[in-house]
Amino acid sequence: MAAEPFLFPYTISLHDSDAAGIIFSANLFRICHESYEAMMAELGFSIGYLLKHRPFGVPLVHLDGDFMKPSRVGDHITIEVRVAELNRSSYRMEYLLRTPDGTPCARAATVHVVVDTKTYASMPIPAAFRTALERHYLPD
Amino acid sequence: MAAEPFLFPYTISLHDSDAAGIIFSANLFRICHESYEAMMAELGFSIGYLLKHRPFGVPLVHLDGDFMKPSRVGDHITIEVRVAELNRSSYRMEYLLRTPDGTPCARAATVHVVVDTKTYASMPIPAAFRTALERHYLPD
Amino acid sequence: MAAEPFLFPYTISLHDSDAAGIIFSANLFRICHESYEAMMAELGFSIGYLLKHRPFGVPLVHLDGDFMKPSRVGDHITIEVRVAELNRSSYRMEYLLRTPDGTPCARAATVHVVVDTKTYASMPIPAAFRTALERHYLPD
Amino acid sequence: MAAEPFLFPYTISLHDSDAAGIIFSANLFRICHESYEAMMAELGFSIGYLLKHRPFGVPLVHLDGDFMKPSRVGDHITIEVRVAELNRSSYRMEYLLRTPDGTPCARAATVHVVVDTKTYASMPIPAAFRTALERHYLPD
Repeated sequence: MAAEPFLFPYTISLHDSDAAGIIFSANLFRICHESYEAMMAELGFSIGYLLKHRPFGVPLVHLDGDFMKPSRVGDHITIEVRVAELNRSSYRMEYLLRTPDGTPCARAATVHVVVDTKTYASMPIPAAFRTALERHYLPD
Repeated sequence: MAAEPFLFPYTISLHDSDAAGIIFSANLFRICHESYEAMMAELGFSIGYLLKHRPFGVPLVHLDGDFMKPSRVGDHITIEVRVAELNRSSYRMEYLLRTPDGTPCARAATVHVVVDTKTYASMPIPAAFRTALERHYLPD
Repeated sequence: MAAEPFLFPYTISLHDSDAAGIIFSANLFRICHESYEAMMAELGFSIGYLLKHRPFGVPLVHLDGDFMKPSRVGDHITIEVRVAELNRSSYRMEYLLRTPDGTPCARAATVHVVVDTKTYASMPIPAAFRTALERHYLPD
Repeated sequence: MAAEPFLFPYTISLHDSDAAGIIFSANLFRICHESYEAMMAELGFSIGYLLKHRPFGVPLVHLDGDFMKPSRVGDHITIEVRVAELNRSSYRMEYLLRTPDGTPCARAATVHVVVDTKTYASMPIPAAFRTALERHYLPD
């Protein structure tokens, strides 16, 4: 099965916005994290499962993002989520936000390190999790 | 057509939670507001439309809520949204959050006043908006 | 020493606001919780301490609030925080938000239950914590 | 007067954290934005003023950040805020978060473009605002 992006539809909420009338910057990452959580659940590694059973942790060590055009309350967007890098113990997620006509309005990336939940030391990505991530592995 | 509640499915996200492991209290209202925005969009009075065209405003003047049992990341809930009071210039929304087996885990209410967007003075609920709200008007 | 309210100065931030130009409703409770955390730290029962050492938990079971007048980005407010009810195993906090000239612009209340962190069963408020709360105990 | 960083003390709140026990990633940017707003107010260009009088806008077009070590509820940090780039119509802010012993625990950057509030087109940084920003201009 060829890898493909995970698609996440989202509608900009009032709480995403601020008094300047557009998305409050930090909320870009909160919204992208929602799409990441949905992807993780689809892959069988939901954040709820990871928090409860603690097979490993996936803390975020880096984030970056860009706004191409302002988004407003009620705007419908689709987030294309993909695994852009898959290293020994870390992976980079890329998020592309598009308006309904396909125009990119923002992008973001997050880098996660797989860690032992007791020692917080990095560890190799477990084989089953790596196989799952490959479903959406589309390097740049 | 008989009035019925507006149903809104929601999955508790990592950003809804706090270090105590459960929903951070204020987020109950943020989540309920998402369900309110979805209902308003369904009724043809989306918040995005109200912000853009400013036919009237619906500021919130009161909120209250109760937690019956803790919700955790990944929990699936359904919010039953209804208009519980429909007065001359204000209305009260009620939100009942249920777990998949139907058990209530939280409830909340918000009271909104219809105001003139220029003077911020209260005004009667416009007829078309009242008719729309009646679709989900289920008094206590 | 006579009981007195705990005072907490706060400036409305861009992230507190929404596209309607005023505080997003749920953020009233987030802001009040910041003042509650500052009071708990002053009393020697910081939330960080409670989370780390788990002598008992203080989950929130009820919230209510009212907006008297809109607050905007950059507005300076002072929150008067007091313990309004002190029961066997629960307490109610009251928060009064005032503008610099003393005008109330919002109020809120939160009810907390003291629980065993293992069983989550309610338990009597420990004596030392009760004594601490009495420093700001000003019943209605 | 030599340029120097703007210092902003901050205590990690419960609402900054998530069920993993540490700061929820997106909140790094919300916290840094609070320090940016405090700096802008000190410089005489508060966000509240910009929103009310609209002499120009300063939308954010890029963000990036890194976590060096986890921060928990109640941790006291100091944010060193500086203007790291000062271009014709844009500027880059850098934020360094330190624990009380001086150890960096996170960093972030935001890039802002000065725009006409009517056309949203970029415009040169106004002279008075440039002079103000120079108070904290410390290029890499």
